[in-house]
Amino acid sequence: MRDIFVLTEADLRRCVKLDLEAVGIVEEAFRMLASGMVIMPPILSMEIPQAHGEVDVKTAYIPGFDGFAIKVSPGFFDNPKIGLPSLNGLMILFSAKTGLVEALLLDNGYLTDVRTAAAGAVAARHLAPQTVETAGVLGTGVQARLQIEAAHLVRPFSKVLVWGRDPSKAEACARDIAERLGIDAQVASAERVVRDSQLVITTTPSREPVLKAAWLHPGLLITAMGSDQGGKNEIDPQAIAMATLYVCDRVSQAEKLGELRSAREAGLLQNVIPPELGEIVSGARTGRSSPHDIIICDLTGTGAQDTAIATHALRAAKAAGAGNIIKA
Amino acid sequence: MRDIFVLTEADLRRCVKLDLEAVGIVEEAFRMLASGMVIMPPILSMEIPQAHGEVDVKTAYIPGFDGFAIKVSPGFFDNPKIGLPSLNGLMILFSAKTGLVEALLLDNGYLTDVRTAAAGAVAARHLAPQTVETAGVLGTGVQARLQIEAAHLVRPFSKVLVWGRDPSKAEACARDIAERLGIDAQVASAERVVRDSQLVITTTPSREPVLKAAWLHPGLLITAMGSDQGGKNEIDPQAIAMATLYVCDRVSQAEKLGELRSAREAGLLQNVIPPELGEIVSGARTGRSSPHDIIICDLTGTGAQDTAIATHALRAAKAAGAGNIIKA
Repeated sequence: MRDIFVLTEADLRRCVKLDLEAVGIVEEAFRMLASGMVIMPPILSMEIPQAHGEVDVKTAYIPGFDGFAIKVSPGFFDNPKIGLPSLNGLMILFSAKTGLVEALLLDNGYLTDVRTAAAGAVAARHLAPQTVETAGVLGTGVQARLQIEAAHLVRPFSKVLVWGRDPSKAEACARDIAERLGIDAQVASAERVVRDSQLVITTTPSREPVLKAAWLHPGLLITAMGSDQGGKNEIDPQAIAMATLYVCDRVSQAEKLGELRSAREAGLLQNVIPPELGEIVSGARTGRSSPHDIIICDLTGTGAQDTAIATHALRAAKAAGAGNIIKA
Repeated sequence: MRDIFVLTEADLRRCVKLDLEAVGIVEEAFRMLASGMVIMPPILSMEIPQAHGEVDVKTAYIPGFDGFAIKVSPGFFDNPKIGLPSLNGLMILFSAKTGLVEALLLDNGYLTDVRTAAAGAVAARHLAPQTVETAGVLGTGVQARLQIEAAHLVRPFSKVLVWGRDPSKAEACARDIAERLGIDAQVASAERVVRDSQLVITTTPSREPVLKAAWLHPGLLITAMGSDQGGKNEIDPQAIAMATLYVCDRVSQAEKLGELRSAREAGLLQNVIPPELGEIVSGARTGRSSPHDIIICDLTGTGAQDTAIATHALRAAKAAGAGNIIKA
């Protein structure tokens, strides 16, 4: 009989915050990813057309971390019709020494939200202009809010611009951000958001570019985190061609799931191996070399982030005495 | 807040037996697999050399089943040095309609043991000679015992022959089988086991053939379930060439992980698409056509079996009022 920690979403929301500690652990995961010592198999992906659903499974082993996570993310897109969220899922944390189950993190996607936003903060820390006065976001969902909150931890901007297809959702998002961060947040056109910001995060599920190349300007970081599947595309491929630098979280994923896919299909970045965010973090490759650089960072989400946040969550939950123990 | 069932190994051992019901549900999974309507992505596999470990993740969606399972099977081979089992793992059962987590089956591999043995019984039911007086097994582990027990459900033989590299383990295995089934069970050489049996199950982790072609004889089914990874090989490829029929659980897996891999590497079965067990079950392809046929059935283990046994387990546990409920 062994002890297995069971942590619910409520437990995890209490113990794991989107803070500099979470950003730090995700940054460490990216650093390790660049070391070549992380083992991260391709994502297992199952589409279930009969149920208008899909399931992704991600994992990664990071040397030096006590555990490794296996994350299961189902997305069932008819759920809202019956009052349920489309996305949910859980993580299982295994001992990296024995492979025994250590914790069941029934987070319904909360830890994914945190580690995804934290990756945005890592990108902002290493790739945004040193001074960001205005940050912009395209999209109005949970990640729009969390990405702005995370970026604000590392670039304390005083103004936020929000664009969304649905103006009332954009208003609500801007209101939430203003309240949460105590700063000015306003709705604007997508063009104004990009032209007037030094840091822009795109968080839409779009299949057609929402960010046009003509809007780029010197001194800009665009973090594109919406595209995480073949078929999605937020950034005009010409914008990638115009940018000073294109960075992604993992080339092998970005070329299938991210903006790199659309760019390559448009004939761009053909014989280039772009730098990965971890290589920028570790200093192996150069990130921003001038305040005027235009950088695009393409995040598809990695199993290494899941292992990092799950390890962090179990530590935090134990410290807080949260959760239940099952004898199994 | 939703209810998630949590079932421990003890709960599952109480509710899920290796019986004709379990065989029936696994048979149904194979039948569906042959229909072409099952969605079964390739196995996610992560090797962790630093920890002498590996993890496999399997899943499958079977139309008509209420849920689908994701099974995580870690194998950490230094565990016995510290008094822990090498193999363990768990299954997560999701609603096939909403993707929400319905049950955590903390089975430490027990359900895998049952569904693997049940697949052996399905093979025996459809491919063994109608009359089996003697069944043989190569290997002396848990599956050696369970495969014999499962086969006995569908072919009530009166004698069992056991071979293992370690004679004392073979003696213990024969004793356990004799006691469990109330029939004669004896240790014999591998050659005698094969020559004197009408049904032979190979359950070893061998990387060199343990079953020689010269031992084959008319009126035989060999079920090879040991090889489940590239590198493993129990059956002399020449035996596959000599057999009347070669059947496997899933061609795409068997050619990478099963005996089909070794056979193809030996230049055999080059341009043949062998029948899958489900196609025999459904009648789409022909299995045994004469009592004299020599048939080899190669089982690597499928996600469809996991979904079948996990669905069955939750139903059985609910009926028995077993397990705990977490509000999450």
